[in-house]
Formats: sequence, structure tokens, C-alpha cells
Amino acid sequence: MSLPNRHNPYRFDPYLERRAKIDYYADDPFLQQVVRHFAKGDFARIDAAARAVSQKASYRWRDLADAMARLEQRPTLQTWDAHHRRVDRVLRPAEALTLESEVFSEGLFSRRTDPLTRIVKMFLIYENGEACTACPLVCTEGMVAVLDAHAESAEAKAILEHVKEGRDGRFGVGAQFLSEIQGGSDVPANVCEAVLEDGAWRLFGTKFFCSVAHADYAVVTAKPRGSEAVGLFVAPLWQPGHENQRRNGLTVDRLKWKMGTCELPTAEMTFEGMFAYPVGPLDRGLANVVGVVLTLSRLTVGIASAASMRRAAREAAVYAEFREAFGQRLTGFPMVQAQLADMDRASRRTTAGAFKIHHAFHAPDKDERRTLEARELVMLQKFASSEDSTETIREAMAIFGGHGVMEDFSCLPRLFRDSAVNELWEGPRNVLLAQIHRDLHRASRKLAPREFVTGLLRGADAGVVAPIAATFEELVPLEALPIEACRRWDQACRALVHAYQDVALAEVEAS
Amino acid sequence: MSLPNRHNPYRFDPYLERRAKIDYYADDPFLQQVVRHFAKGDFARIDAAARAVSQKASYRWRDLADAMARLEQRPTLQTWDAHHRRVDRVLRPAEALTLESEVFSEGLFSRRTDPLTRIVKMFLIYENGEACTACPLVCTEGMVAVLDAHAESAEAKAILEHVKEGRDGRFGVGAQFLSEIQGGSDVPANVCEAVLEDGAWRLFGTKFFCSVAHADYAVVTAKPRGSEAVGLFVAPLWQPGHENQRRNGLTVDRLKWKMGTCELPTAEMTFEGMFAYPVGPLDRGLANVVGVVLTLSRLTVGIASAASMRRAAREAAVYAEFREAFGQRLTGFPMVQAQLADMDRASRRTTAGAFKIHHAFHAPDKDERRTLEARELVMLQKFASSEDSTETIREAMAIFGGHGVMEDFSCLPRLFRDSAVNELWEGPRNVLLAQIHRDLHRASRKLAPREFVTGLLRGADAGVVAPIAATFEELVPLEALPIEACRRWDQACRALVHAYQDVALAEVEAS
Amino acid sequence: MSLPNRHNPYRFDPYLERRAKIDYYADDPFLQQVVRHFAKGDFARIDAAARAVSQKASYRWRDLADAMARLEQRPTLQTWDAHHRRVDRVLRPAEALTLESEVFSEGLFSRRTDPLTRIVKMFLIYENGEACTACPLVCTEGMVAVLDAHAESAEAKAILEHVKEGRDGRFGVGAQFLSEIQGGSDVPANVCEAVLEDGAWRLFGTKFFCSVAHADYAVVTAKPRGSEAVGLFVAPLWQPGHENQRRNGLTVDRLKWKMGTCELPTAEMTFEGMFAYPVGPLDRGLANVVGVVLTLSRLTVGIASAASMRRAAREAAVYAEFREAFGQRLTGFPMVQAQLADMDRASRRTTAGAFKIHHAFHAPDKDERRTLEARELVMLQKFASSEDSTETIREAMAIFGGHGVMEDFSCLPRLFRDSAVNELWEGPRNVLLAQIHRDLHRASRKLAPREFVTGLLRGADAGVVAPIAATFEELVPLEALPIEACRRWDQACRALVHAYQDVALAEVEAS
Amino acid sequence: MSLPNRHNPYRFDPYLERRAKIDYYADDPFLQQVVRHFAKGDFARIDAAARAVSQKASYRWRDLADAMARLEQRPTLQTWDAHHRRVDRVLRPAEALTLESEVFSEGLFSRRTDPLTRIVKMFLIYENGEACTACPLVCTEGMVAVLDAHAESAEAKAILEHVKEGRDGRFGVGAQFLSEIQGGSDVPANVCEAVLEDGAWRLFGTKFFCSVAHADYAVVTAKPRGSEAVGLFVAPLWQPGHENQRRNGLTVDRLKWKMGTCELPTAEMTFEGMFAYPVGPLDRGLANVVGVVLTLSRLTVGIASAASMRRAAREAAVYAEFREAFGQRLTGFPMVQAQLADMDRASRRTTAGAFKIHHAFHAPDKDERRTLEARELVMLQKFASSEDSTETIREAMAIFGGHGVMEDFSCLPRLFRDSAVNELWEGPRNVLLAQIHRDLHRASRKLAPREFVTGLLRGADAGVVAPIAATFEELVPLEALPIEACRRWDQACRALVHAYQDVALAEVEAS
Repeated sequence: MSLPNRHNPYRFDPYLERRAKIDYYADDPFLQQVVRHFAKGDFARIDAAARAVSQKASYRWRDLADAMARLEQRPTLQTWDAHHRRVDRVLRPAEALTLESEVFSEGLFSRRTDPLTRIVKMFLIYENGEACTACPLVCTEGMVAVLDAHAESAEAKAILEHVKEGRDGRFGVGAQFLSEIQGGSDVPANVCEAVLEDGAWRLFGTKFFCSVAHADYAVVTAKPRGSEAVGLFVAPLWQPGHENQRRNGLTVDRLKWKMGTCELPTAEMTFEGMFAYPVGPLDRGLANVVGVVLTLSRLTVGIASAASMRRAAREAAVYAEFREAFGQRLTGFPMVQAQLADMDRASRRTTAGAFKIHHAFHAPDKDERRTLEARELVMLQKFASSEDSTETIREAMAIFGGHGVMEDFSCLPRLFRDSAVNELWEGPRNVLLAQIHRDLHRASRKLAPREFVTGLLRGADAGVVAPIAATFEELVPLEALPIEACRRWDQACRALVHAYQDVALAEVEAS
Repeated sequence: MSLPNRHNPYRFDPYLERRAKIDYYADDPFLQQVVRHFAKGDFARIDAAARAVSQKASYRWRDLADAMARLEQRPTLQTWDAHHRRVDRVLRPAEALTLESEVFSEGLFSRRTDPLTRIVKMFLIYENGEACTACPLVCTEGMVAVLDAHAESAEAKAILEHVKEGRDGRFGVGAQFLSEIQGGSDVPANVCEAVLEDGAWRLFGTKFFCSVAHADYAVVTAKPRGSEAVGLFVAPLWQPGHENQRRNGLTVDRLKWKMGTCELPTAEMTFEGMFAYPVGPLDRGLANVVGVVLTLSRLTVGIASAASMRRAAREAAVYAEFREAFGQRLTGFPMVQAQLADMDRASRRTTAGAFKIHHAFHAPDKDERRTLEARELVMLQKFASSEDSTETIREAMAIFGGHGVMEDFSCLPRLFRDSAVNELWEGPRNVLLAQIHRDLHRASRKLAPREFVTGLLRGADAGVVAPIAATFEELVPLEALPIEACRRWDQACRALVHAYQDVALAEVEAS
Repeated sequence: MSLPNRHNPYRFDPYLERRAKIDYYADDPFLQQVVRHFAKGDFARIDAAARAVSQKASYRWRDLADAMARLEQRPTLQTWDAHHRRVDRVLRPAEALTLESEVFSEGLFSRRTDPLTRIVKMFLIYENGEACTACPLVCTEGMVAVLDAHAESAEAKAILEHVKEGRDGRFGVGAQFLSEIQGGSDVPANVCEAVLEDGAWRLFGTKFFCSVAHADYAVVTAKPRGSEAVGLFVAPLWQPGHENQRRNGLTVDRLKWKMGTCELPTAEMTFEGMFAYPVGPLDRGLANVVGVVLTLSRLTVGIASAASMRRAAREAAVYAEFREAFGQRLTGFPMVQAQLADMDRASRRTTAGAFKIHHAFHAPDKDERRTLEARELVMLQKFASSEDSTETIREAMAIFGGHGVMEDFSCLPRLFRDSAVNELWEGPRNVLLAQIHRDLHRASRKLAPREFVTGLLRGADAGVVAPIAATFEELVPLEALPIEACRRWDQACRALVHAYQDVALAEVEAS
Repeated sequence: MSLPNRHNPYRFDPYLERRAKIDYYADDPFLQQVVRHFAKGDFARIDAAARAVSQKASYRWRDLADAMARLEQRPTLQTWDAHHRRVDRVLRPAEALTLESEVFSEGLFSRRTDPLTRIVKMFLIYENGEACTACPLVCTEGMVAVLDAHAESAEAKAILEHVKEGRDGRFGVGAQFLSEIQGGSDVPANVCEAVLEDGAWRLFGTKFFCSVAHADYAVVTAKPRGSEAVGLFVAPLWQPGHENQRRNGLTVDRLKWKMGTCELPTAEMTFEGMFAYPVGPLDRGLANVVGVVLTLSRLTVGIASAASMRRAAREAAVYAEFREAFGQRLTGFPMVQAQLADMDRASRRTTAGAFKIHHAFHAPDKDERRTLEARELVMLQKFASSEDSTETIREAMAIFGGHGVMEDFSCLPRLFRDSAVNELWEGPRNVLLAQIHRDLHRASRKLAPREFVTGLLRGADAGVVAPIAATFEELVPLEALPIEACRRWDQACRALVHAYQDVALAEVEAS
């Protein structure tokens, strides 16, 4: 009698080998097409840049991202060292330090990098999820934008130079510390105080959602003593010359325990006299935060969502091409085929839309209408694409069956958790839906709601446009949305951005 | 000049105090109404039992569930001890041992506990999420059911007695080890082998998703050597008299790293001659697994989903009543009001539906049609309610803004991750949708698809029933669903179960 | 050809079974003899108490001590909770909470427990090493002693009652916070400040070695504002009614990372206005700390050292009786026999000495000479026995060969690390050697050094006494020890305490 | 009234700054003198090499060693990956990978590196403790030596080349797997089996102390089937071309939980047909293991012990020069002065002795007597120096008072634990004392014991030599040591090696 076999001989190797070899850009003709569409004459140059960064993102950076995701690798906080020195230092795994350093060395915010090249590189980087790089990049981008516009003091200019162009090959990393306990999105409710002493501003108070707690610099909001207006500041987070050793008048009270973006340290901090430099007029801080910093973050959430979806759709497809069940390939099941097609299409339309909105946003010399459109598109995309991303990743996980929720079987559970976090920061849905309504209501004297819709959806099917336009026409004029209209407003806004993305996709595919 | 305040004086205390005091049953009039509706003359007795268990579930067990959820508390595997003894022991935190022991001491599967009392208690227990209790309960319930029907050997009967009635006050815990590497849901593809030696069956092979890896006993599938049919066995997981010291011919190769239900140890195991006892005829194993074990698991997923939704809706409501943003209570925003109402209604209809389906399933002396209906309802509910649950918890998290994804701010991220896992095991959506289609197609000679729909939806609006019935009438007769029909089949099935739940809710509320 | 055997069939089981069954008291006739010798007429009662506590210490408490020693179980600090509440809470594993609660429920410091019963129980408890019980017991004992003598305020009396007699079955746990950064043993250098406000004392400053950081109360030294004298206070560590939730005006800055006693949380703390109650006259704090609190701690180090040695000697013997090398039992090697005999004898003489010194210390109505003798014996024993203990455990580890340094093969590495810590706190060797010299020098006008030696060593061999007496006669009169005499002073002091212990052992064995 | 100061302003900064700057070689004139004494004409070259490596060891490698010592960084074992592939991979922190790679890149075993340069570099590297480099270096050195003598097959020669000279800049790392469960030092008791199949040797069985479990290759002992003699083999630990992915027929069952050398993974392994290549004649394996591999390891323990002592003495001195107690510098206390002087002298004599013994061992063309002397010196030094090292580090810790046992205050607790492990492996004291006695007894027909002693101690005080010689004369002729002579034999052996070291020190200082 033969001996029974102890171990099941089944192997995932063909799948793993196939998966290991994928190049995010070189193996994604659609993405190349998107780049070609928007790059126009610059395609050769930008394509080359994309291929170069993809060689890193698809292999070495992917592996670093996976390695740092292990539970034991989560960032920890050291408040005091063994010798009674308050250090407030975030301890991260060596993999995170390496990845961050290599990614920032790309010089994404350098004056030598055009917006399209930047976004293409970011897209590829974002296919690896948060990985303690996505949020640092976004925050740094916002910091660069606001300092590009408003850096006046020598200190602010030096910071700008460090984060844009680097110093001795090392690039400054930026953070945004805006939210307080009493209200995440409600920046006007800030109680952090800025005090002018001997010509220098010092900040006092508590910030409750300080992502990129390990950064070199932060954009911070605070109210100048005696004022009700929120001012905007930039602050180095360490005492100059004492990086990673002595904080600039702040304590890191706690690292938050998050469901997603776990590799990224998000802290609660207390400012106890942190030196900071004003950015722009101190009574215009809110406008600069919302108009520049938050808007850029939201724009980038669109890109990140598209990248996650693209990755998720591909991961599912690669698995489905390998795996068999009930005697046939998963790709042989109509249900699976339909789902893969849905995911692929969703990822393509979101990608095309994200590039188009990015393009519209960065278009020079926009008139008032184009400016409004860009602003609303950014908000519409922020909430819709982040939710679509979560949904698509969830669908992709379902293709894997029970393996779908295993954190080390594929990257999907991590992307899923990251995406679920993306939904809730930089303005959750309710805040954005209300803001969009407020904006359009205010603008409606000049721009009829119907016209706003039809303007955005030029090129779309009339049958798609009509109901959206009708709902906007009905609801925008209302001073406030009544409870029974809320769901319809939500749906119409989603329909609008999806229709916009469909048009963008058609344009890309036609080019 | 006054000194700036270092710390923000904002306090969550009123919210936390309110939250801490909630009694899952006593503070939920709707749940009481459900119990009254189904209990009829037994209400006083079952209500008393519910109040008693709720006193534990709402406070002490809730706290144990929260405490064991910390990352450092995750179960770990010890394969060898320090003295070269292979132990294959799962190390769990003391909190998990305590909670499991207290919950199992409720005697849920005792012959003294009627089905309704059991499900009410389970519902309250499930409001705490997985907590290394939900899955052990489900698996034990399935084991009891299949052994109640098929235990013949003295060993099987002794196991049944241990898990049903306990021994010296300690109740046996059951597990199900069915899935293998080559196919999670595809039990017929099992390659595990059962070998008869000297009148005793021994199992050889690998199981890849062994939840409740710490259990006392498991229901296991394996093919008797030389047969293509899957047989069903029950096996003690330890050598008798060496509990937690020596395994019964198996190794635990690895604990899986899951996104959710993290407190529950899910293992990959190899059987190297595990002694096991047949359960029912060995050529009928698949039928017993699917018809009894899996069906009960799926039924319970419905209850668990409803419980999670009820908890999530309440958590969101309690927070919204406390929290202010932009100068007013969250409950003052129409958008929030609409969302809270949606969540509440979703949780109520799922709850009413789950109890009604449970009732239908446990109805005695069902004829062929009732049996088919119960079977299909269980599958329909399994995929729809688990997804609805994830969705409702996600909505509840959104009410919390940035706090929503913090694992220690509320239980919601944990429930969310648990629910996402629930979607993918015990039959993911695709498998169930295909099975339902197959079942109805096969039955359609006796029971027209339209009749099946209208029969289930007695009491529902004609406007709701008509499109569902039409879709069933069109798609059920097809031998196989074409790719373009898949999405419609999915939607019609969801619509069917939602309509059924709406009817159930109306009945409860009318009673 | 037969298949090669994969696994080595060697088993440690006989050793493990033997080891598991040992009762620390019932299986130690020597310890029983010690108790008989000192208990005299009370033997039956104390023997019964010892047997009862040994049933717990030898099995259940031993297992809890082992379980809490795993690295993952080390205490951690939570400074803020998830809801912005500063909690400064020490998180310990459930095993530690259980063990502490059960040990303290013995009522060791109750007025119903005589000193000999207390020390016998402590001895048995200490055979399990620190286990987050040894230090809490010692600190509580010191607190009881100093409050018994000096509690005057209602608050201090209530604290005393709580730690002595318990409240609702739960006994208060005491701590000692004396050492500051600038000097561990140098209490007079304290800079912590006590400020009297509205009739209440509040403490401000930093303590750097706060063992039992989770305690209910602490004995604390601080200088009343404006005074150079160190005052003694007792402080509740939590706000009354908010135990484990809100601290009494202190922050726990950090838990130290220690080589030994790792289960015991030792913290760095900052007092920010902690309410505290004076203990005795505020200008006599130093005397009370050193004379009562520290002296009791040192006395207990003697007991703990003896208990560790007893355990270590036994662990080595049990292993040597089982293990073979080069074809024979370890006990068959003369080298091993000699070492086992040495360890056994060292543990016996230290035990006999510790009980005798304890007896001498607690003797009522001591005259000036007896008081001096007891004081010096306590210090001599503190440094000598703690070092002897480390040495004996190290010898015991060597019997185990490579297994000796495996933390989970036996308890010895843990005991070794605990003992190494014991050497350095409560007065390290240099401080004690200097203090003994100072004491005897000061006393030498009334009590000649030679007479001090011969008085203590009554019953010892003249050949042993003579060189010690000669060295004392030469060195005590010196104002300060010159560098070349230091080693001789050290050796003579060790010789003295060892000779004293030998006499004690002879007395016990003769009885 | 002024506000009380919350935080104690005390600072360790001057100490830390001083400590941070120390160069292990450049700041140690004594070590330079040792090198000059042994290097003779080669001093300039070797001095330059020492200065270069010291620049790395004293700063960057020191910091890496400290960083990898954190508890969270301990190596862990991954037996299976997420995709059902048995990998048996040791996960180590990135710091360990970096340090190992940099240290091995020194090419210590290259044919371009002379023995003195090698030992000087090793000495400096060993000042950082184990750090997952000391043991890998020792094992690799032994492998090189035995393969240099016996590599015959192409495979063995390729391995030798890889570990000696590197390949593509990466150097192979060696391990030694000798000890089995039934006897650590008792290699002849090995039960591991070597089976010759189709011209290839494959190993089966269990090894219980497999340090450097992550290595590329191992020297392994096993008995050829049918033989009672232990054979020696070298085996690659991974399948060629699948490094860190697929093992060569072995499983890593468990990583041991050690008290010291915690950064070094020590495993229990099972060979299930590991391919291996014979090293030397298979009936001479034991001789080669003991005579080459173990002897080199023991020799290196002497170097490592000296390096630890040198580091510990310096750490204590630096702290004592900074710290004050009771109003004066620690260096002002005679007791401290005496202790620092003792430590310094102990570290110097051990260092001088270690270099002299190393020199004697590597002397070419030794006659029989010189060979015997070298062999005995290596064993004498092994046990005596490792114990002296533990003792000196313990004394150094005592200088730090309570800070001495804090793992992050200084490196001493780590060095202490590493040293305590060193005592017990590569032959614990009892094994060596017995072997030395056996060797001298056997040699005594040719070499009188007295002559052996006086020969070794040429240059020592007659008063020192006489009692040692007398004891040897009395005890060596005995067939076996009686129990009452064991302690004297131990003491005489220690006295011998200490006297030898004193002579060596005098020679160095006179040069």
C-alpha cells in the first residue's frame, strides 16, 4: 500500500512568477495611451520618465512597501530616550526610510519637473498604496504650492528650497497639521493659538490628526492671538541642526491606531511654543489652506484612487487567469468575466478622469467658470473616486475568494484599508456634498445649474445628462437641502462625475 | 499676558459615558419587538433570557472583545515547545480564553435551549463582532446539527455530548476544516485522504482554511482511499487526556494573517494520520456538509450581519447626538439625518429578515417547496446581508469623520473588517449566485420561477415584485447565465432578498 | 533499506514530569527545619500556613509567573487614550493582574499575620522570582511599616488600612518613589519639591526609578519648599474614585527597559502637583526612609536571594539526576557532584542566615547594640546575598549546559537576570560598604570593632573569626578607607556575613 | 511665588557626547601597544588597517548593533509563506543585514588577510558584542580552516572560495551544526545519519543548537549509516539558485529564546535529506571538529572576552568621570578607583593573553609540546576568560548603579548577557576542565605536569608558580579527579591561565 501524501502538492508558483514580473507601466498599454493623450508632443520624454520610475515602483519599491506592511514594522513613538531627553521621535523600519528617501529623490516638486511628469510618476508610485509615501508626497506637494505662492521670509524660502530641490541630495518632507479635536474638517473652529513674541511667531495648542509625524516641516493653521481668523504658517518640526533629536517646541503625544495607511505615522501633537513662519496674509489662512493645500490633496486622492483601482483590477485579472475552480479557469466563468470587465472599466474611467481633471486644474489662465469647474470637479472626484476605489478593490478581493482577505497573499487588503481611510480624510463626503451645493448655489446667479452640468458633460449622451441636469436644476436653488433630497443630491453628484469620467475615457480611447 | 493653554480642553466624556451604559437588548425596543413577534407565548421567558445575556454581552464581554483586539494580543502559533515536543498550540490572550469559556457556558446548543432563545442570545453576542466567539459558535452549531443527525459511534456520541451539554462545566468547542488549497468552496475537489487501518479511520493531507484552530474537535471532509466521493468525519484535535499538549496526528503549519476576524486563529494544517470518526454514510459527506454544516453557517452569517448593522447604526447615532461641527450637532444636518435613518432602517430590515429566515429554516415538517425556499433564502441572505453589513458599517464610520477609521476610537473598524471577511467565507457571492440559479433551474419543472418569487414575497408591493419576477422568469430557464446577464441576476437576487426583508420588517412592526 | 528517522526521539519528559510535581515547601525538608527552628511552639500553625501557600506558589503561581515572562507580555505604557484623555496607565498581561491579586489576598501585612508567617510565605512566593510580585510586596511592606509608625492624617490612615487589611477583598499595592536622576542612592540630593497650598501638600518634580508604577499608593520623598531636609509623604497615585483612569497630578513619562525584573513596570515620572500626605515629621523624612523603608527592602532582598538560590539549586539537581552525558548521569561526574553540593550548601546557609537576621531585626525591645547589629547585618546581607544569589544561579545554569541560557527551558535565566537587578537597587555594594564603615567607625567609641565581629560570630570557628576581626580592627578606625584597603574591606565584610550564615546554618541543623 | 519646575534639568549630555566620540582603537593606547608588540615590523600596515576598521566599528557598526538590539528587532522564523511554500526563512531586521554585509566585506578570511590583522579587526568588531556578527565570524573562520585543510570535492572548494573571497562582492556566511538534543558537547553521541545515495550524501536527523541559522553554509556532523564514527560534512543551506527561498532538505523547527546573543538566530533544525559534502576522511570527523572547528571557536571566545572587557572597563571609566554622587565625582571615591583599576587591569591582562595565545596557536611548525601547550591554553582561556568577562562587565554595571541594568542606558547589559552565553557554549567549564585533565594525564609520561606548568609560566613569579605546579603534580597523575579535588583543580587551572596572562601583559608593557 502506498504511503499517503502528507503535503498537498498544489502550487501557486506560476501565478506568483507572472505577478512578480509585471511592470506597472510597460505592461499597461492603457496607461501609456493616457500619457500619450495628455502629453501630446512631450510623449517621448514623459514616456521615458515613466518607464524609468516604473522599473523601480514595480519591483524594488513594491517589495519595500510589502515588507514594511508587516505588523511588527508599524511605526512607534519614542517620547523620551534612555537619558531623560524628550525626543518625540517616530521610529520607522529601515524599509520605510529607504523607500521614502528613494521616492523623494525623484525630485517630483522640483522646478525641473512638469505637472504631467509629476502625476505620471505619482500614479506609478501610488500603485503601491500608502506605503508611507503617498501621504508625504501629497503633503509636500501642497506645501510647495502654498509656499511657491506665499513664501516671503528667508526661513520660508529656505524651507521651500529644501522640499523642492533638496539639500546635499536629501529632500525635505512636508506635513499638514490642520485638524483639531473639536472638528476635523471644521478648520475655522481651530483653537490653536499663534503668539507674536519679539518678532517671532510661536504656536500653542493641540492638533489631533498629524499625518507624516516624522516630517521635516509642516503647514499649520492657528489663530493669531486676539483674532478670529485662521492664519497659515510653516514650521520646521525639529530644532535646526538637531534633526531627529530635539523638537521645535512640540510634543508628540500619541500615534493613532488606524485601520489603514498603517505604515504612515499619524499623531496627536501639542505645540508648546513652536516657532513658525507666516505663509501669506494671516487673515487669509483659511482660504489658502482650503484653496491650495486641501484642494491639491483632494486632487491627488483622485490620482491615488485611480492607481489603486488599476492595480486591483490587474491583480484580480492575473489571479483569475491562473486559478481554477470546479474544473475550469476562473476566467471561464461568465460571472467572473463580467466582474473583471467591470473592474477594468471602472479603473480606466477613473484614470482617464483623474488625468483630465488634473489637466483642467493645472490649465493656465483659467477664467472664472473654468476655475469653478475645476474646483467642483476636484471635490466631486475626491469623494466619488475614493469610494469607487474601495469598491473596486473589494470586488477584486472577492475574485480571490478566501485568499482575498489574507494580508500576505496579495496587496489587496492593504490597498482596501488604505482606500477606506482615503474616503474619510481631506474632506469626507458629507462635507464635500454640502460645499458643492453651497458653491453652485452661490454661483447660480451667474451660471445656471443646468448649464454647469451640460458644460461639464460636453460629449456625453443626452440620456445621461438629462436627469443629472434636472436634479441640479431642482436642488441647487434651494437654500438648504431638505432631508428627503439628500440622497438624490448625492446620487446626482456621483452620476455627474461618473459621466465626466466616461467622456474622458472616450476621449483617451479615441486619441 | 495670560499663558497660552497647552492642551485643548475638548472632551469626549459625555459621549463615552453615554456609550458605556448602553444595554444591547434593554435599550433596543425594536429588538424586543422582534423577539415578541417570534416568541409569541414564550415571550416572557425568552425576554428574561435575553436580558440576562445582554447584561454580560453589553458590558463585560464587550470590554473583553475590545481588549483582545489590540495588535499585541493576536493569536500566535507555537509549533514546538522548549523541550523538543511538537505541540502545535495556539497561544491566545487570557481575555480570549475567558470570553470563550463564559460564552460557551451559556449552553447555546444544549437540548434545553430552543432555537429562538439560541438565536436571540447569539444576536446579542454577535453585536461584539467576531471576538474569537462568533466563528467558534457557528462551527459548533454546525457540528451539533450534523452529529445530532448522524452520530453513531460511541466516540462521535461522546463528542456530541461534550459540545452540547459540557463536561465538568466546560463545553467542547467545534471547528470545520473543509477547504483545501486548490479550492476553497470547491469541496468536491478535496484531495485529503481517509485511510481505514485496523478498523480505524485516519486522515492524511492538508487543509488550508482551518478556523478555530484551537478547537477541541473538528468536522472534516476527506475522500476515503479509492473513492471519488467526499466523506464527512469528526475528529478530536488533541490526543484524549493530552488536551493542549499533544495533537491527534496533525501539524498546524501556519496561522494566516487576515484583514479581519483577527482574534480568531485560522490555520493551515497537515493531517499525518489523524484519527477520525465517520459522520453519516461516507458517500453522502458532501450533502451533509453543504446541506447541514454550511447551510447553518450561512444562516448564522445572516444573524451576525444583522447584529453588526444594529450595533453600527447605534454607534453612529450615539456619536451624532453628541458631536458638533460647524456650530451644530451632527444630528442637525439633513444629510446626517438621512444617513442615520438609512442605517437604522437597513439594520432593522436585515434583523427582521434574519429572524424570519431562521424561523422558516427551523420550521418542523417542511414540505419540498418550503424546504427549497428556506435553502435559497439562506444563500440569498448570506451574500446580500454580509455585503449590506459591510456597507452599513462603512456608512457608520463616515459619520465619525476621521475618527471613523481609528481602531480604538470605536469598535467600527473592527466590525468593518470582520464583516468584509464574512463576505468571503462560507460561500462567496459568485458561488451562491450560481448555486441559486442552478437550484431554481433544476426546480423549475415543478416550481415556476415567477411563482417562486411571488410566493416568497407575499405581502410585498406589486411594483416591487414585478421586475424581480420578470427577471427570474427570463433568466432561470437558461442553462447557463451569459456574461451580459450576470449583473442583472445579481441585482434581481439582491432585490428579492431585500423585498423579503422589507415584508418581514413590516410584519414585525405591525405585530 | 529502512527510512532514516526524521526526528530525534530523545525526550525530556521524565525530567519535566518530575519538575512539574515539586512542592516548594513539602519537598524541601531543610526549609521545614528552618521554620521549625524559628517557629518553636508555633510550628504546627505556621507549617500549615506554609503548606497552604506552597500549594499555590509551586504550581498555579509558578505557571502564571512563567506565562507573564514571555517577551510579548512585557508591561507597556499608555499615556493618552484614544479619546484625548491623559491616562498614564500601565498595561500588564491578565496573568500579572491575576497573580498580584491572588498573592496580595494572602493578607501578608495584616495585623493577623505574624512576621515569621509572613516571611515564610514570602520565601515561597519569591521562589518564583520577581514576577511582578516581589517588588510590590517589598514596597508595600515598607509602606505599612512607615505608616504604622507615622500615619496621622485620616488620609494616611485610610491608605494604611487599605494596604494592610484590604477593602472589599482587594488589597492596596504600594510603591516607593525615592530616586531621582541626579542620584539613585543619594536621596539627600533630591530636588523634588513639596508645596503647601491651602493646607494641602502638592509635589512637583521628577522621579527616575519608580518601580511598581501601576501601584495604588507610593511613599515619596520631596523637600518642602524652602527646606534642605527631605520630607516623607504618602500619595495615592490615582484620583480617588478614578482608579486606573485619572492620575493624581503626575505623568508617567516612560517605562524603563531593564535587563531583569522585566515583568515589573519601572517608570520615570513627573509630578505636576500630586496631592500627598506627610508621613512623620517633615524634617525626619530621610531617617524614616533609610531607617524603615530602605532597611525593610534590604532585609527582604536577603530573603529573596535565599529563595532564588534554593530554587536554583533544586532546579540544577533535578536536571542533573535526569540528564546523561558521555554515557553517564550528570550526577555521576565528581565535578557536578561537587558543584551541586556547593550550590545546595550556599542556598542553605543563605536561607538560615536570612531567617536569623529577619528574626534579629524583628526582635522586640532591642538595646542599642542589638539595634546596631541588626542594621549592619541587613546591609551586609543585602549586598553579599544578592551577589551570592546571582553566582549560585549562574552555577546552576552551567549544569544545564547550552540549555542553561534558554529562557523557556528553565526559569534560571529569568531568576539570574532578576538577581542581577537585585544587586544594584536598594543600595548597591559600594554605598553599603561605605555606610557600614561609617556606622562602625562612629560606633567604635562605644563598641570596639573586634568586639562587634566576635559578638556577631559567637559560635564560629576561631580560625574564621580571627582574620575578620583583625581586618575590622585595622580598618574601622580609619577616617576614610584608602584605595588599597577597599578590596580588603569588601572581602572582610563578605567573610563576616558568610561566617554569620554558617553559624545560623549550624544552629538550624542542630535543632 | 515662583512656579515649581516640572522637569528635572539634570543632563547626561556631557557624558553622552564624550562617549559618542570614542574610537575603539585610536583612543586605546594599550591596544595599540599590543598590536605593536605582536606586529613587529608589520606594525605600520596593521595599525593602518586597525584604524580604518575602528572608524567603522566605533561609530556606524556600534549604532547598528544598538539599533538591532531592540526587542522588536529580534529575529523571527517564517516556516511557510503565504502561498504554501515551505521557506524556513529567518527574518532579521534591515540593520542586521547591513551590518553583516559590511563586516563580511572586510574579507577577514581572505588569503590576503594575515592572522594578526584578522584578530585585530575581530577584536574591534567584538567590542560591539555579538550583534549577529561575532558568532557568524567565528563559525565562518572554523569552516574556512577545516575546508582549507580538507576541501576536495568541487562543491566544497566552491564553498570555500565563496566564504573566503566572496562572489560578486558578497561573502558566504558559515555556521556550525554539531550539537544534538541528547548531548550538547557530547558530539560522539550524535545520532544524525548520513546516507549515500547515487554517489551523493544526504543527511537525516535533528540538530538542536544551530546558531547562524540564516547562514549560507554549515559544517555538520553526522554518522554515515552503519558506522559509529562521526563524519564531518559541509552543506549549503539553500538550494543553489534559490537562496532565501528554498531550503536544501531541512526544516527550521524553532528559533530558541536565549538570554543573550539575542540578535543571533539559533535554531532547532531537522534534516530531511539535506545534500552535503564530506570534509576529510569520514572516520576522522570528530577529530577535525574538535581539533579545528571547536578549537578555533574557543580561541576566538578568548578574543571576544577580552574585547568585551576592554569595552566594559572603558564604559565604566567614562561614566565614573562624569557622574557625581554625594557631592563628588565617582572617580573621587577610593572604592570606585580601586574597582576601575581592577577592571582595567583585568581587561589588559586578558587582552595580552588572548593575543599571545593566538600567536602561539598560529605559530608555524610547532613541535608536539608546543602543540599541546597551545591546545591546553585555548581551553584554559575559553572557560576562564569568558567567566572573567562576565565578571568584569558585572563590575562595570555596578559603577552605573541603577542605570547599570538598563538595556538602553549603556551597552553593558547586552554585553553581560552575551558573555553569559559565551560561557556555556563551545564547551562549558566542566567539559574543558575534564578534557584538560585527560590531556595532561595522557601526556604525563612524556611531559611531567610540573614541567608543563613551569614551561608555560616562564617569566612568572616563583611564588605564583609553585602552588599551581604542586597542585598539577598531585592531581594530573590521578586516573579520575575525586569529588573533593574538583574545586582545587578548577582553581589551579584558573590560576595557571591568569598567571600566563600576567606574564603576557608584562611582556607587552615592557616592549
